[in-house]
Amino acid sequence: MAHRTWGGRFAEGPSELAARFNASLSFDRALWREDLWQNRVHAQMLHRVGLLTEEELRAILEGLDQIEREIEAGTFPWREELEDVHMNLEARLIELVGPPGGKLHTARSRNDQVATDLRLFLRGAIDELLSLLLDLRRVLVREAERHLEPLYVLPGYTHLQRAQPILLSHWFLAYYEMLLRDAGRLRDARERLNESPLGAAALAGTGFPIDRHYTARELGFSAPMRNSLDAVASRDFALEVLSALNIGMLNLSRMAEELILYSTEEFAFVEVPDAFATGSSIMPQKKNPDILELIRAKAGRVLGALVALSTVVKGLPLAYNKDLQEDKEPLLDALATYRDSLKLLTALLPGLRWRRERMWRAAEEGYALATELADYLAEKGLPFREAHHVVGRLVRRLVEEGRALKDLTLEELRAHHPLFAEDALPLLQLESAIHRRNSFGGTAPEAVRERIQEAKKEVGLA
Amino acid sequence: MAHRTWGGRFAEGPSELAARFNASLSFDRALWREDLWQNRVHAQMLHRVGLLTEEELRAILEGLDQIEREIEAGTFPWREELEDVHMNLEARLIELVGPPGGKLHTARSRNDQVATDLRLFLRGAIDELLSLLLDLRRVLVREAERHLEPLYVLPGYTHLQRAQPILLSHWFLAYYEMLLRDAGRLRDARERLNESPLGAAALAGTGFPIDRHYTARELGFSAPMRNSLDAVASRDFALEVLSALNIGMLNLSRMAEELILYSTEEFAFVEVPDAFATGSSIMPQKKNPDILELIRAKAGRVLGALVALSTVVKGLPLAYNKDLQEDKEPLLDALATYRDSLKLLTALLPGLRWRRERMWRAAEEGYALATELADYLAEKGLPFREAHHVVGRLVRRLVEEGRALKDLTLEELRAHHPLFAEDALPLLQLESAIHRRNSFGGTAPEAVRERIQEAKKEVGLA
Amino acid sequence: MAHRTWGGRFAEGPSELAARFNASLSFDRALWREDLWQNRVHAQMLHRVGLLTEEELRAILEGLDQIEREIEAGTFPWREELEDVHMNLEARLIELVGPPGGKLHTARSRNDQVATDLRLFLRGAIDELLSLLLDLRRVLVREAERHLEPLYVLPGYTHLQRAQPILLSHWFLAYYEMLLRDAGRLRDARERLNESPLGAAALAGTGFPIDRHYTARELGFSAPMRNSLDAVASRDFALEVLSALNIGMLNLSRMAEELILYSTEEFAFVEVPDAFATGSSIMPQKKNPDILELIRAKAGRVLGALVALSTVVKGLPLAYNKDLQEDKEPLLDALATYRDSLKLLTALLPGLRWRRERMWRAAEEGYALATELADYLAEKGLPFREAHHVVGRLVRRLVEEGRALKDLTLEELRAHHPLFAEDALPLLQLESAIHRRNSFGGTAPEAVRERIQEAKKEVGLA
Amino acid sequence: MAHRTWGGRFAEGPSELAARFNASLSFDRALWREDLWQNRVHAQMLHRVGLLTEEELRAILEGLDQIEREIEAGTFPWREELEDVHMNLEARLIELVGPPGGKLHTARSRNDQVATDLRLFLRGAIDELLSLLLDLRRVLVREAERHLEPLYVLPGYTHLQRAQPILLSHWFLAYYEMLLRDAGRLRDARERLNESPLGAAALAGTGFPIDRHYTARELGFSAPMRNSLDAVASRDFALEVLSALNIGMLNLSRMAEELILYSTEEFAFVEVPDAFATGSSIMPQKKNPDILELIRAKAGRVLGALVALSTVVKGLPLAYNKDLQEDKEPLLDALATYRDSLKLLTALLPGLRWRRERMWRAAEEGYALATELADYLAEKGLPFREAHHVVGRLVRRLVEEGRALKDLTLEELRAHHPLFAEDALPLLQLESAIHRRNSFGGTAPEAVRERIQEAKKEVGLA
Repeated sequence: MAHRTWGGRFAEGPSELAARFNASLSFDRALWREDLWQNRVHAQMLHRVGLLTEEELRAILEGLDQIEREIEAGTFPWREELEDVHMNLEARLIELVGPPGGKLHTARSRNDQVATDLRLFLRGAIDELLSLLLDLRRVLVREAERHLEPLYVLPGYTHLQRAQPILLSHWFLAYYEMLLRDAGRLRDARERLNESPLGAAALAGTGFPIDRHYTARELGFSAPMRNSLDAVASRDFALEVLSALNIGMLNLSRMAEELILYSTEEFAFVEVPDAFATGSSIMPQKKNPDILELIRAKAGRVLGALVALSTVVKGLPLAYNKDLQEDKEPLLDALATYRDSLKLLTALLPGLRWRRERMWRAAEEGYALATELADYLAEKGLPFREAHHVVGRLVRRLVEEGRALKDLTLEELRAHHPLFAEDALPLLQLESAIHRRNSFGGTAPEAVRERIQEAKKEVGLA
Repeated sequence: MAHRTWGGRFAEGPSELAARFNASLSFDRALWREDLWQNRVHAQMLHRVGLLTEEELRAILEGLDQIEREIEAGTFPWREELEDVHMNLEARLIELVGPPGGKLHTARSRNDQVATDLRLFLRGAIDELLSLLLDLRRVLVREAERHLEPLYVLPGYTHLQRAQPILLSHWFLAYYEMLLRDAGRLRDARERLNESPLGAAALAGTGFPIDRHYTARELGFSAPMRNSLDAVASRDFALEVLSALNIGMLNLSRMAEELILYSTEEFAFVEVPDAFATGSSIMPQKKNPDILELIRAKAGRVLGALVALSTVVKGLPLAYNKDLQEDKEPLLDALATYRDSLKLLTALLPGLRWRRERMWRAAEEGYALATELADYLAEKGLPFREAHHVVGRLVRRLVEEGRALKDLTLEELRAHHPLFAEDALPLLQLESAIHRRNSFGGTAPEAVRERIQEAKKEVGLA
Repeated sequence: MAHRTWGGRFAEGPSELAARFNASLSFDRALWREDLWQNRVHAQMLHRVGLLTEEELRAILEGLDQIEREIEAGTFPWREELEDVHMNLEARLIELVGPPGGKLHTARSRNDQVATDLRLFLRGAIDELLSLLLDLRRVLVREAERHLEPLYVLPGYTHLQRAQPILLSHWFLAYYEMLLRDAGRLRDARERLNESPLGAAALAGTGFPIDRHYTARELGFSAPMRNSLDAVASRDFALEVLSALNIGMLNLSRMAEELILYSTEEFAFVEVPDAFATGSSIMPQKKNPDILELIRAKAGRVLGALVALSTVVKGLPLAYNKDLQEDKEPLLDALATYRDSLKLLTALLPGLRWRRERMWRAAEEGYALATELADYLAEKGLPFREAHHVVGRLVRRLVEEGRALKDLTLEELRAHHPLFAEDALPLLQLESAIHRRNSFGGTAPEAVRERIQEAKKEVGLA
Repeated sequence: MAHRTWGGRFAEGPSELAARFNASLSFDRALWREDLWQNRVHAQMLHRVGLLTEEELRAILEGLDQIEREIEAGTFPWREELEDVHMNLEARLIELVGPPGGKLHTARSRNDQVATDLRLFLRGAIDELLSLLLDLRRVLVREAERHLEPLYVLPGYTHLQRAQPILLSHWFLAYYEMLLRDAGRLRDARERLNESPLGAAALAGTGFPIDRHYTARELGFSAPMRNSLDAVASRDFALEVLSALNIGMLNLSRMAEELILYSTEEFAFVEVPDAFATGSSIMPQKKNPDILELIRAKAGRVLGALVALSTVVKGLPLAYNKDLQEDKEPLLDALATYRDSLKLLTALLPGLRWRRERMWRAAEEGYALATELADYLAEKGLPFREAHHVVGRLVRRLVEEGRALKDLTLEELRAHHPLFAEDALPLLQLESAIHRRNSFGGTAPEAVRERIQEAKKEVGLA
């Protein structure tokens, strides 16, 4: 039985293949709005400095409007043989308005043009990501607040071993803090990239009397870039965005992992809403957290994108090289991956059904409160390391006897160390233990509530 | 001026987004041939072991034929809501042939099904890559032979400094050797992955009396896999293919880099054929080696794909997890990238115009023959390190005087060391120097010619 | 309070810094045995072809013996200012034996010398890894056998949800298969790299009448490399080894992850031996699986090493460039990481205390046997997809009622579908369900026992 | 001949191996100053809140002073069996001062302790990198200024083809801009990481009445972190630093690549100072830019470090896991790599000998001024695209005839297009062409001089 793969393409001759290999239209088409905007502003500037007449400007602007309508209507005649979005728009403009269209490229090169489009695009994309991050942070604050009364307590883990009880609200807020920094990184990247390469021309600037400050301002940039070589050759801004996306996705992958664990039958802390889980084709009882698994996995995808572009840029001489065309696909893919992941978590989190009793029992069971006893002894003056040893012996004994901490009597405690007194017993109650950890940033309900109030202000909920 | 990005998608609700995020049809559709093949073989096996009647089998096979015709004709009703290629084919089969279609999934899960398809697909893809590698190696041998008479000599570089003259043919053969190993790695990967997961079912095997040896044999696998958990959970075969592609692309990136350098105005050793270069929109004199730049850059893309999948697999518990759906896109992209790069180089290399005189002059100029003098003294018994110092002093003197090696007289040589005699002078001639390096694997024409004869046999040219 | 970092080094001037940056002695010192071996063989060859006298050879060999003794005794005067291991050995040899020492470098360059050492080193390292992999596979087979009587059953997972019961022995064997392939990749890499660069000299071969076949043979290489440029410029062999290590570590990271999960209080399937766990400084009850966590994490380290070297090689012109000096550290680190991980798992696995009852209960609880019922209906002729739906409804009902599968009566089954009969009930017993999955490679005890017998032969245990 | 590798270590038993695998002392020892500082501040806080007496505090502070002296004197008894720097310091403190030493760990865990040390360390390291970046930017500005009179002109490249002439000063300033952003990223990372985890304890905060604001302030942090889980679990700050280092090294790799190219015999624009180049052991004439090659290569190393830590963090549940111990080595290595690279370039750049005539000739030769003619026609009203075609034809003719642009007569120009007039001829002079490109950020001497003045202020040189 013959096995053919990738069939069609193998017929293609080397020159078609070369054309396809070279062409970027399939992905840089995503920049059409930015290219139109830039074209309009560039035309207006050319007119202001006397390089286009009033009529030429008008013709160009009308042509660009017409192009916009065509693209939105899906009737624009995209042609892959014109390689990229810039040439497609320019060629169409010339078709529509004749010679003035040919003047639009004056004092500009595709090198500064594409760098300008890409910066505009990233700025817009970051704005949307920041707004999605805000949505998700709002959800985190709301969920934190919603699970304060009654208190939801679960074991906090280190090394995936139960360590100390924490509030579920505290867990939500931990991710809140992470996402706050994730947003901060994107905001910093946005600010740093928001300078205009337009007017750098091919690499050296131009002799035309252009006004780069005007175009920068009109396009919402903070300033024109101050070195033309740098303007067309650099992609550190793209790498910075990818780096921020990588870190952001890694944080989301941690939350996804925890929710996957918590929704196993073994943990059983939470149930994933049906809309974000799927069944198995062979095992009718399964409820698979597919969306969370994909979010976890796609951290790899974004890291791959960062590695790809880093490797492209490594050792690349100035100024523009065709290699830089490889910047767009990893960026577009990583942006979309992060965007979708944020939106999905925002929709998924409020639908989680947390199983308060299971969590409570898990936090209570085992020896997650042992630290309280050690702290107790330390407070009574026993050097911390010694207190630690006393309690260690005590726990080992309980493990051997298969008993829980809260079964301990005062006599038993005293038998282990004379410093134990009546006031040690309440420490073995989950609720009082939780309330004790009221240091700043700790998991005690008061500390958590305080942080929630603050966070609500930060996200505009209060 | 409002700036919208990614417009349409933002309208979509969380459940559509989840469905799209989950769906793999857009890329796993590439596996339709493999899925059809597997379905046919699985059906035949089910019939042989009594789980399908003759009529049911016939109906299924006819349905599958019909599906094949529909896909090839472009009329197959692909539905993204069915998530993946497997469910699309199965649903259509049930539409076409009714209840028997529903029996085809007996004793099989999507877990073993997709693993089987992917292995079949990679096997086919590797076969095609091996054939393309053979094509390219043929070109390398032909070019090596073609540039032996007259001899094309160029400087060999270390640290990108001219070191010793080499034959252009020798340079071609260096890449020939690299590609031979690249093919070897793919061949080893192919052999290792050519085992059948089919019949592992979801993860534990099945109670149905299936015949895994039959399906393995019919699908061209060397054997059924011997552990059902491993069969559905492992993606090391995919990582191995990506690793081989990564190394292969890195080798191509080195050739691309060298050709880019050699086609600069500064080196000017070679001219890239027009079909594989492009002009500049603002600088009419430019001839940019775009295709070579892209090949160089795309090494980053393939490394990114390897990192992506590696990160996905890291720490992933057995057996199947949705994370593994992320295996296909990096693979498909990396395979296509390597395939296109091979085809393009195969077409490009014979069109290169090597500038024999420029290269010759570059090899002759400078002090690339200084080693000959050091070797000469060493052969006369001077310890190598001392010979090295003598010649070092001599070269430094020439550099200061702005003179070339071949301008040296016997007297001058003798002034530097009394061991120099008449027979030292021919060493300073490029041609004789080249002929001297006739150790096995060296650059002397005889050694190179010998290797070419051998290589021609290897690639079926002699 | 002043804060100083990296103090000492800041005093160093640019030239010392440059010397340190350049020097490779701190890591290439690891190659001293290989360098000595190569030196001996190279000297013998030089003597055979008449470039060294008998006396010179004897002096050199005695000098090399002396150097070996010095290094082993820790008295060798390593000098960083001599940059690398090769120059250290050569300089010391000249000190020890005078002029003949200076002749040893005849017809050789550091370029082919280091490539030869590195290949020898990797060959030796792979041999040791293969032997460690065999040790670990032996442990896996032994553990698989040891847990067959009585049967240890645990839930097999997909999406980390309980899917179907499997044998613990089957789980061990899954990793056995993975490690078999990991060894195969290393073996293939070893074979491909086992060719001798020695005699390629700087890049172009040499005019000395050397015998590369002799040195290749004496050093245990299968043949001399056939192209001198390739011999000094290529590092694909190093990348291939790193790729194999990366895949190997990823497989180990999966085992580590599963054991970490299984040793949580929630799963509680296994207890990690004390020797491979640590306590907490503040929580006396904790038993942290540190070694497993590190193995999981170090997969990242090895992937990082692969990325580092890949990026170094990308776009690097032939032949030797100083960049290639960056090959050794990632290799040495990745080899040691994998080696230690293998040894640790080999020591750790037999010490695991599997908790048979917990696992059994987990496999029995829930609905991991639902597939049996669906398969049952399918065998009775119901199309598989329909059988799936029937059982799906049944499970949903049980979940709502908080009941287990094994609580079902025949009447209830019949109420869901008339095809259910008396013989359906045993399917709900864990043991009989496990025995049913006796397809080739399945988890039934007979299938597993068969594979164990075979595997024992493979690893020399039977 | 027996071949042993990694000899010694193979003797070690599993428990020693486990201890070594676990231990972090070999690298976290680098944090000793930070750990001491933290210990002092923590002790003072414990005293302030009544958990240490005056005498205990005094004893502890004296003990810590003693430890500092011992470490600086090299007499501190480091013990690997104590695993890490924290336990080494603590154990020694107890030895020195007895029971009070054991109280220092009160209300603190190694989890918050190590996170605090690492943030302090990174803050200090970034401060030093920022100062080194400033040094290098100063050098770039000075070099830019130094090569303005007389003007140094070289070809600007796109696709490594000569495109348009640029000033060498402009080239220096391009890197100045890049490094400015590199510093900005580090500064942002510094600000974001400068919060105190101290007091988060193991993961949940503590019941002791600690004062986290005090310790944060005393350690120079802007605030205590607001969530204890986040404080011990997060390593995004480390990833952000690695991301900034990666981008920074990629920029340096580009400069290194360009200097390597420019110092080839083919370009011959520049000569690398002897102190940063090395000779060849077999080719006495060679001058290898080793330092630059290593800087180029080490971009791979830093990218590898980023990938390593990213992979470690991917999917890692909160809060602390041993996996996080893998954060220090990539960080320390990447920081040192970037630091050394900056220092070396700062020392190397002023020593470069730029060959003004070679560069000038290269800029003049070829057709790098063709754009001027196209711009000329465009300014006279010809649509840019048409102007482009006219000049394209003209250049093709010259190439065929082997003539240079500056050989053109006015008649010839007119024959190609009637719009050419007398004032077109000066465009073909290098100097006037350079002066024309005086748009903001362009390469004209005036524009460059203006930027230099500004930059001098930025770096404190004016």
